Amino acid sequence: MDIQNKVNHGPMDGVESRGAKDGGGRTSFLLLRLMALLLTLAATIVLGVNKQTKVVPIQLLDSLPPLNIPVVAKWHYLSSFVFFVVSNAIACTYAAVSLLLSFSRKKRWLLVTLILDVLMVALLFSGNGATAAIGVLGYKGNSHVRWNRVCNVFGKFCNQVAAAVALSLLGSIVFILLVMLAALRLHNKSK
Amino acid sequence: MDIQNKVNHGPMDGVESRGAKDGGGRTSFLLLRLMALLLTLAATIVLGVNKQTKVVPIQLLDSLPPLNIPVVAKWHYLSSFVFFVVSNAIACTYAAVSLLLSFSRKKRWLLVTLILDVLMVALLFSGNGATAAIGVLGYKGNSHVRWNRVCNVFGKFCNQVAAAVALSLLGSIVFILLVMLAALRLHNKSK
Repeated sequence: MDIQNKVNHGPMDGVESRGAKDGGGRTSFLLLRLMALLLTLAATIVLGVNKQTKVVPIQLLDSLPPLNIPVVAKWHYLSSFVFFVVSNAIACTYAAVSLLLSFSRKKRWLLVTLILDVLMVALLFSGNGATAAIGVLGYKGNSHVRWNRVCNVFGKFCNQVAAAVALSLLGSIVFILLVMLAALRLHNKSK
Repeated sequence: MDIQNKVNHGPMDGVESRGAKDGGGRTSFLLLRLMALLLTLAATIVLGVNKQTKVVPIQLLDSLPPLNIPVVAKWHYLSSFVFFVVSNAIACTYAAVSLLLSFSRKKRWLLVTLILDVLMVALLFSGNGATAAIGVLGYKGNSHVRWNRVCNVFGKFCNQVAAAVALSLLGSIVFILLVMLAALRLHNKSK
């Protein structure tokens, strides 16, 4: 692409600027894909290692002193969290593979990645939604269905869930940007 | 486009078939957009009118007969359900507006709708994820956090939630198809 730019140097400014844009576009793609990879990896790890043990005093009989019983909160206790970790791991793996393959400059690469990126957007956002919904219940509880909040006990656990959702949300937004950028590039090519 | 096809009739089969594909593409876009509109509208209504009143016998004292108390389940008791209804209503409105505007054949229309369709995919899938997560809790409960299942009492309510999620999921898949179709069309134009 650089050679083409040099060859076209001079009166063909339109061609040159489009060529330069394409080069800039490629770098933006690689950077965004790397960001998506890192963010989903971080989200997977932050929730995937989430565990908190808390000693809770439980009063069995009024005449006896309260028993101190350790209670554990683990990430895989809730199916939404499992879904979140799996979806982020899939998106992370896809980001890594597509990052490597994007150096090969295959034909139709832009179209194929756009389509797969949209699927990642769908996968990640459903995981984010599910985990955020459970997180809100954990923080606030819901009196109508008598689900009590649990984050007053497992504060660290809940904060880690919130951090994972924030990371994954940023990763999902990067995937949206990748789709938009690919669409813009296809549009510019079609002109 | 039809005139162009007629002009190019004869040896230029490639051009003709591409023109015919574009015409077919337009109809597919309109049909898919109409489907997205109807599915998200149905999902909004099915969850938005969801309400169930159940008379539950509650034993206050052993010496007294149980009191029959009516308990109500409403869709807006859970923030995830509110988010679901709002996101489906937004997607439905957008589908209606974009369906009307798509007749005007504006420049860059394909690119603009692709970008907005991706945002709808993100919005709808987060709503689906959140509502499905709460739905699973309602059906199964979770012993680790002591959230009891409620769908044994509010069966009709839960089934209606499941139906709304299924409708919205179909609507979201239609939006994904719209993005893919637009990307394919931009790609074909760019060749």
